Amino acid sequence: MEDGPFLREDIHCLILGVVTADSSIDQILMNRICVDGEDSTEKVASLVRRSGKVDVLMLPSISLGGFNIIDPYELHRELRLPILIVNPKRPDMRMVREALQQHFVDWEERIRVFNLMGSPKAFHPNSRIRTYYYAVGVSRYEAESILRVSLRFGKRPEPLRVARIIARALGELSSMKALGRM
Amino acid sequence: MEDGPFLREDIHCLILGVVTADSSIDQILMNRICVDGEDSTEKVASLVRRSGKVDVLMLPSISLGGFNIIDPYELHRELRLPILIVNPKRPDMRMVREALQQHFVDWEERIRVFNLMGSPKAFHPNSRIRTYYYAVGVSRYEAESILRVSLRFGKRPEPLRVARIIARALGELSSMKALGRM
Repeated sequence: MEDGPFLREDIHCLILGVVTADSSIDQILMNRICVDGEDSTEKVASLVRRSGKVDVLMLPSISLGGFNIIDPYELHRELRLPILIVNPKRPDMRMVREALQQHFVDWEERIRVFNLMGSPKAFHPNSRIRTYYYAVGVSRYEAESILRVSLRFGKRPEPLRVARIIARALGELSSMKALGRM
Repeated sequence: MEDGPFLREDIHCLILGVVTADSSIDQILMNRICVDGEDSTEKVASLVRRSGKVDVLMLPSISLGGFNIIDPYELHRELRLPILIVNPKRPDMRMVREALQQHFVDWEERIRVFNLMGSPKAFHPNSRIRTYYYAVGVSRYEAESILRVSLRFGKRPEPLRVARIIARALGELSSMKALGRM
């Protein structure tokens, strides 16, 4: 799952899910969420149900589309799937807190999930690669086994790496359209 | 390389190239061509040059965006790369000829490449899979070695299979936008 590009003044933002099988794309699923809204948990769950083929759900971060925060525990209760949030960058909690306090009257509610998740675990399957992850509904051992297999090319698991490339291409396409080049 | 969805009344059509490395997506490149126009050879060549990473160019058919016909010999001269045109369906030359005669005053010029290419070769790496291909700038032996490696999931080589899935997703996104759902 990945979010598409958006501008602060946009109302909606694309979310895009790539279902992979044996590290290769099988499906692309899309939906929209509100930028800085509260519908990402529900919309992600609905994409996963629509696919009918997901065994493990991977997310690039706790929030998509700005600060539209995903509750991984609720997702796990809804979907009964392991949830892995994987990112080569450790989230900067001080920056998250400052941004939330500055822009949202309900910042205390929005920060709840970040506080609940705490610090991510570091994972380095080999000397070149280090990434960070949160795991819900799956043991540390299983989570790291999944990560080991899916980290084929660099610091992002294959489904997230591919989703990111496609989300960028969609952004490029939107710019081409906006410039009248499509 | 794949073309995106278009309607007969559209002026332009998206073309999309997926560069794979070790069967996994590395780049997505996009451009537009004129529906039923004459710019596909030049636009495909320009995408490949922009990538800088292509070793073999695969196409799903001799024409993209309707009857915007690609000249594989010219592409090979320009790019000095093996060109493979691979499709699980054998082109129906009678239908191609009828459609061209009906819709284009310059149908004789447009049919030239089809006639030049003749019949595709059948390839069945195993008992389940049969596909058809044309190869330019590469021996039959080499072409079939490339196909054997890239036919991981079914009848389409991996780059063309993935390009097709992404092109469809882009079409779905355009429909979502047209319906005001994005």
